[in-house]
Amino acid sequence: MSDVDHEALALLEKPILGHLGFLGLDGYPRVVTVWFRHTDGELLVASRPGEYKCRSIRVNGRVALTVATADLPYLTITAIGDATVEALPEKERIEFVTRVARSYLGREQGDAYIERWSGGGHPGDGELIRLRPRRFTSWRS
Amino acid sequence: MSDVDHEALALLEKPILGHLGFLGLDGYPRVVTVWFRHTDGELLVASRPGEYKCRSIRVNGRVALTVATADLPYLTITAIGDATVEALPEKERIEFVTRVARSYLGREQGDAYIERWSGGGHPGDGELIRLRPRRFTSWRS
Repeated sequence: MSDVDHEALALLEKPILGHLGFLGLDGYPRVVTVWFRHTDGELLVASRPGEYKCRSIRVNGRVALTVATADLPYLTITAIGDATVEALPEKERIEFVTRVARSYLGREQGDAYIERWSGGGHPGDGELIRLRPRRFTSWRS
Repeated sequence: MSDVDHEALALLEKPILGHLGFLGLDGYPRVVTVWFRHTDGELLVASRPGEYKCRSIRVNGRVALTVATADLPYLTITAIGDATVEALPEKERIEFVTRVARSYLGREQGDAYIERWSGGGHPGDGELIRLRPRRFTSWRS
């Protein structure tokens, strides 16, 4: 953590889309946008079951998650580390996605999102990507 | 290109930061933000000489470049392909960076950026990352 500044670290708490990098099943990198939570030193991403990113990360758990400001002055932080994919039972899934939706969209829009997303309150089970950062790097450009 | 929609493809022409994914020298993925140009079917990124991303891509040219809207409705496009790193002599470097700076910041702010960036008009030689997409993928979430 010696090479990361506090302002950059604070980006992890802001409602900015994360860009998750991983190695695809074809050996090419992928970068997908994600909502994530930063909690207890881990970065957590919910997913529908069986998505490409989950299948890829199950094969190769090395990932990077980058969060950056969209405008000048550009500030960027990346967490680099190892991720695992675990089951996310429906009840926990709803709790998790409600929490991230509210944090990204605000309470009212977040709850409206959840109503659409959960379609009748039963979105089914999902998966959770759990990223344990080995290190953070930040930069200004 | 069959699985990409035109609205997503149009994101490549907008002043949205690209997120470039590649494999770092330590075997972990990286995701860095970049200004890029989309021209003649290629995606071009200028760099200072010897940056980590260039050294990594020289070793493994497989990359992904993702562009996404920051807010709902989220729209994302990714170009996946092979990249090379070539010399970018000072004169061409200034032309290239001026063009991307103006496209991202507007003419006035872009030119102010270039004045700071080029410090006296001689930023020196740089490097150019040239990404040839093998395919595009887009999605809405």
